[in-house]
Amino acid sequence: MQISCPAPILQHETVQMAHGAGGRLSQELMKRVFMPHLQNAFLDQLDDQAKFDAGPGRMAFTTDTYVVSPIFFPGGNIGELAVNGTVNDLAVGGAVPRYLSAGFVLEEGLALEELERIVKSMAESAMTAGVMIVCGDTKVVQKGQCDRIFINTSGIGFIREGVSVSCRYLQPGDAIILSGTIGDHGMAVMTTRAGLSFQSRIRSDTAALNGMIGEVLDVVPGLHAMRDPTRGGVAATLNELASSSSVGIELDELTIPVREEVRGAAELLGIDPLTIANEGKMLLAVPEADAATVLSVMRAHEYGRDAALIGKVVADHPGMVIMRTPYGSHRIVEMPLGEQLPRIC
Amino acid sequence: MQISCPAPILQHETVQMAHGAGGRLSQELMKRVFMPHLQNAFLDQLDDQAKFDAGPGRMAFTTDTYVVSPIFFPGGNIGELAVNGTVNDLAVGGAVPRYLSAGFVLEEGLALEELERIVKSMAESAMTAGVMIVCGDTKVVQKGQCDRIFINTSGIGFIREGVSVSCRYLQPGDAIILSGTIGDHGMAVMTTRAGLSFQSRIRSDTAALNGMIGEVLDVVPGLHAMRDPTRGGVAATLNELASSSSVGIELDELTIPVREEVRGAAELLGIDPLTIANEGKMLLAVPEADAATVLSVMRAHEYGRDAALIGKVVADHPGMVIMRTPYGSHRIVEMPLGEQLPRIC
Repeated sequence: MQISCPAPILQHETVQMAHGAGGRLSQELMKRVFMPHLQNAFLDQLDDQAKFDAGPGRMAFTTDTYVVSPIFFPGGNIGELAVNGTVNDLAVGGAVPRYLSAGFVLEEGLALEELERIVKSMAESAMTAGVMIVCGDTKVVQKGQCDRIFINTSGIGFIREGVSVSCRYLQPGDAIILSGTIGDHGMAVMTTRAGLSFQSRIRSDTAALNGMIGEVLDVVPGLHAMRDPTRGGVAATLNELASSSSVGIELDELTIPVREEVRGAAELLGIDPLTIANEGKMLLAVPEADAATVLSVMRAHEYGRDAALIGKVVADHPGMVIMRTPYGSHRIVEMPLGEQLPRIC
Repeated sequence: MQISCPAPILQHETVQMAHGAGGRLSQELMKRVFMPHLQNAFLDQLDDQAKFDAGPGRMAFTTDTYVVSPIFFPGGNIGELAVNGTVNDLAVGGAVPRYLSAGFVLEEGLALEELERIVKSMAESAMTAGVMIVCGDTKVVQKGQCDRIFINTSGIGFIREGVSVSCRYLQPGDAIILSGTIGDHGMAVMTTRAGLSFQSRIRSDTAALNGMIGEVLDVVPGLHAMRDPTRGGVAATLNELASSSSVGIELDELTIPVREEVRGAAELLGIDPLTIANEGKMLLAVPEADAATVLSVMRAHEYGRDAALIGKVVADHPGMVIMRTPYGSHRIVEMPLGEQLPRIC
């Protein structure tokens, strides 16, 4: 019987529909764009699932899809965001992040060079955070049926022994600590999108917080809650915490760190910095006696230099967040309705 | 101080940008569409990550994003597909599927009624497969920036003790077993999309195979490999198996079950049924001595009634799949290049 060689594959410069069809062009995309950056012992198995030792103990599992627009912005890109965001969602649950999946939806026509830059960023961010991307999937849709690239990352981590944090565990008396300036990520994306002139001075804060969280938990394993204030910003996150724990939260506006450029841009656009997404910040609810210790550990870390005690948990007005303004008056920090900054993450 | 109630939320009939903004409308979408169907002890925690006991033993982790178009097709919809597909990717790895994540990208304007039908299907499919959807995420993009709905599901399962399967474990002499008719899913989607008149007679085979796989592994835990032939069909899957294990595969065309309607539609469209996606079928590589046992277990199961021995693994022509035709000649079953049936899953 006669056996001929498969026809040679054309080299493409952009994503083709066939790159997502599970055939030879899918394999080519793997080899040319993904494997050079992401290769590891898990992906090398070529099976449809990654396998590794479970436990002992408890684990955490989380998922997020990233649809940020534009996909490149000052301080980062969608790939970094996808890795750091999921790492952070595990870390604020008290877990040590370990394994990530990556699911891509690509628009036909996306430049392979851009895809490769994004994948390279993901590999670097994963390396920095100490996690491995162990399984993945790529789909391609026709031009005009998605906006360039969407990335889902799901993640698995193992929960540190003795740590038990939840949005339901806030207690009256807890100190509310914020790890740094707010609004940087959302404003970096927003001003880039709007083409505003001060865009270059505002950079996304995207960062993996698991290192800093590990240092905090080393000294205060019993803290009550951690959350990264992403979509909806500090306002949404604190409202969720207050509501889930049936407690009130009181903030002091003067203590909340906001960069001058961010404050200016927010004023110009008519947006409250408290509602803007962050991608490298965290909120903590900590027993009052531990607040000073936590603050000093965080301030010694590069991602916590501007950490501040911004308020406290009270038994009063459960489910509500109240802010004391510089003028001594009070205002409710409401759960944002939505829609001010679409596609920020 | 005066505290007013939050303004009432308008009832919407379609997905709004604000439904993805992490604020009050996101919560409303959760309460109105997702929670009634997906509610469970994990999602009730309202944390950004699900937590559960790990191990002991080994676990499997997989991810897939579903972009099928149309989102409703004869025999199923994108939600069922998203649950069954990820369940199957775990099960063919020898794992008992347990926990799923669900990441949604919704197009502004999608009818909430349609979203709810999809979510309901996911809940039912998860229940049938014996898995729980334990964490999720919803993003909304502007009209025209995605095609109605994309769903990522990632999954975790615990590998059965004594089971070790991989696409690298095929050995010369192994029997190649196929669980049933091929091409049903891809052809159901394709004919619906093309508006062909015989569409109503062809239905997707979407199904969770973990039940049948469990029964097979109960009696033959030492089988070598399992794979579900989705994108690229049986042709792509067998080529991957042959290549990963550096063995040849020989098929007998007459033994491969294809429904008459599927064969007819495939001929009309000029597509080889071997390259069409399946969503409820599996291929197994089994030591020859166990083939009859595996076949009888599968044929007793509703998803394996048409199971057939379709070929064998040989030491010859490593990496190549060769088919004996009804006329006694041989042809190479090539790895498909791609692109015949975009957005099939």
